Amino acid sequence: MVHRRRGYAAGMRATLIHGKHDVRVSEVPDPTIRDDTDAIVRVVRSCICGSDLWPYNSAEPDEAGDRIGHEFLGVVEEVGSGVTRTRKGELVVAPFVWADNTCDFCREGLQTSCRNGGGWGADGTDGGQGEYVRVPFADGVLVGLPGEPDDALLASMLTLSDVFSTGHHAAVSAGVREGDTVAVVGDGAVGLSGVLAANRLGAERIILLGRHVDRTDLGREFGATDVVAERGDEGIERVRELTGGDGAHAVLECVGFGEALRTAIEITRDGGTVGRVGVSQYSDVPLGVGSFMRNVGINGGVAPARAYIEELLPDVLEGRVQPGKVFDRTVGLDEVPDGYRAMNEREALKVLVAP
Amino acid sequence: MVHRRRGYAAGMRATLIHGKHDVRVSEVPDPTIRDDTDAIVRVVRSCICGSDLWPYNSAEPDEAGDRIGHEFLGVVEEVGSGVTRTRKGELVVAPFVWADNTCDFCREGLQTSCRNGGGWGADGTDGGQGEYVRVPFADGVLVGLPGEPDDALLASMLTLSDVFSTGHHAAVSAGVREGDTVAVVGDGAVGLSGVLAANRLGAERIILLGRHVDRTDLGREFGATDVVAERGDEGIERVRELTGGDGAHAVLECVGFGEALRTAIEITRDGGTVGRVGVSQYSDVPLGVGSFMRNVGINGGVAPARAYIEELLPDVLEGRVQPGKVFDRTVGLDEVPDGYRAMNEREALKVLVAP
Repeated sequence: MVHRRRGYAAGMRATLIHGKHDVRVSEVPDPTIRDDTDAIVRVVRSCICGSDLWPYNSAEPDEAGDRIGHEFLGVVEEVGSGVTRTRKGELVVAPFVWADNTCDFCREGLQTSCRNGGGWGADGTDGGQGEYVRVPFADGVLVGLPGEPDDALLASMLTLSDVFSTGHHAAVSAGVREGDTVAVVGDGAVGLSGVLAANRLGAERIILLGRHVDRTDLGREFGATDVVAERGDEGIERVRELTGGDGAHAVLECVGFGEALRTAIEITRDGGTVGRVGVSQYSDVPLGVGSFMRNVGINGGVAPARAYIEELLPDVLEGRVQPGKVFDRTVGLDEVPDGYRAMNEREALKVLVAP
Repeated sequence: MVHRRRGYAAGMRATLIHGKHDVRVSEVPDPTIRDDTDAIVRVVRSCICGSDLWPYNSAEPDEAGDRIGHEFLGVVEEVGSGVTRTRKGELVVAPFVWADNTCDFCREGLQTSCRNGGGWGADGTDGGQGEYVRVPFADGVLVGLPGEPDDALLASMLTLSDVFSTGHHAAVSAGVREGDTVAVVGDGAVGLSGVLAANRLGAERIILLGRHVDRTDLGREFGATDVVAERGDEGIERVRELTGGDGAHAVLECVGFGEALRTAIEITRDGGTVGRVGVSQYSDVPLGVGSFMRNVGINGGVAPARAYIEELLPDVLEGRVQPGKVFDRTVGLDEVPDGYRAMNEREALKVLVAP
């Protein structure tokens, strides 16, 4: 229980959500080491997630507020006595949920189901959109990054925390293999990351379903070979035309609405798989006799980013992929509320926070 | 176009369905070679499928009737001039749909989606519950079997046509691996075949959900380690108790009703997969945020039996598995209508037909 930095009552700034469209940056207590496996990380880069917009558009009024933000990269300021791998001064990235990385689920690569894990901002941890974060199970959670990276590399490394790892999870869950025809439903930051991930895994053809030209242009840069702007039955028809009537081997569902998932199922080739990573805003999925006779499967869910970081890191470090290009705006910590507004109004694709 | 056997107008007996609970054995034209890749097979063993009971309970009255039956094993009586692999006099088994076995889907092991395939009794073929069957693409469809097997081996070899291959497809689709805990929903012939298939693939623990003691007893003989007779939420609770709260790595859905699929999803361990093979009588599947956060997937569908026959055959021939034990009644061709009645009234688990 060592206190740190600026004296007991100093406090730090962090983002809290107080209700619908009500995000504020406030003074909160400085985090301290509570368990000997904790670390304290000074946040160097954070960002706003598409999934942060769900509470942004629906939270009940709450003057006390809840911490928010689950993607961050920073420098280790302090470690507990039981931390052996993570070093003070080290640049690290954290996955978007914390986990012990030792339980059976973690060993299977499903850290999102860790028996001792949780979400950032919950259980006495801090949200990512702030100055400092107390990190439980530091040795299991944090992944070390090399030295003094430039802004672009910092941005790309930050995407390992969530958005690029989530796109990769969609591609892995959909079973993308070399030479495949892949379709990606959704041109948000996750969908574009899915394009990049599918391209990295060797997909030969990548059909991106999206209708925002600035976004689909980045999709083309990430490897999309075709863009389908039509939605619903017209979009389904168009993808079928592009694939000789067959559909795509692997389809990445990166939206989370029922209609997007229906589209994904309909454009999947017989024997193919939908990898879903769009946080499900639906309860039922249309998987009746049509998909049954076609052996179409659905896999995926919340992405165990921690399982993928080491695998994806070398390609990021060596510039073979530049997932940080999904960030099209950078704000300081005080401007985070405006960042939410900009993302919510689709003024920005994804907002980087440099506290 | 060579005619064969008993002279042009002789005809053969075959089973037709004329409406709900109205199955008859009638005289129909003898099949003849139409395409040079055809073969004519004299049926030695056939059987009634659980899926035959769907039309048996719902077909509209139709005096003309439709051929029925899709599982058979027999002796090749005649081959077309383009048949090179299949030999006259050979004992063969046919998968429950016919396929060219050369198109891209077939080469991928998804013969149920063959670009030139179809169902038995459709497109001028014959149903399996008859004396003879015209087999299109004989070299692709038929798999040769050794010599003069006894009754028990004939019954087990016949299950490769559908029921054991379907149980195997459930297990493969659910990703059963050595050491896994597996749950099987349904104690019909497919569910019991799923138990046997999971056991063959090395599952350590197999929980069978079913409440017909004579059937679950056979399930135990096939490798079930636990039987759960409770259904719905009670059944879900019981499986969770048996698995330390976690559920099963792989769950085989062998019923086809929505409630069975909901049960299957709920008893799947985080990161696990439901392999569905029960012909879907539902249109929507409850796959909302709960299964999303747990990364539960659904795979499977109609089983490409043709893809599995060669793999499963050695274990059948050498008696390491005895899937033919699912047959608990044998009838002659004329007794097929009573066989339907007996299966429909759950008097029989699965009925073998010896024409």
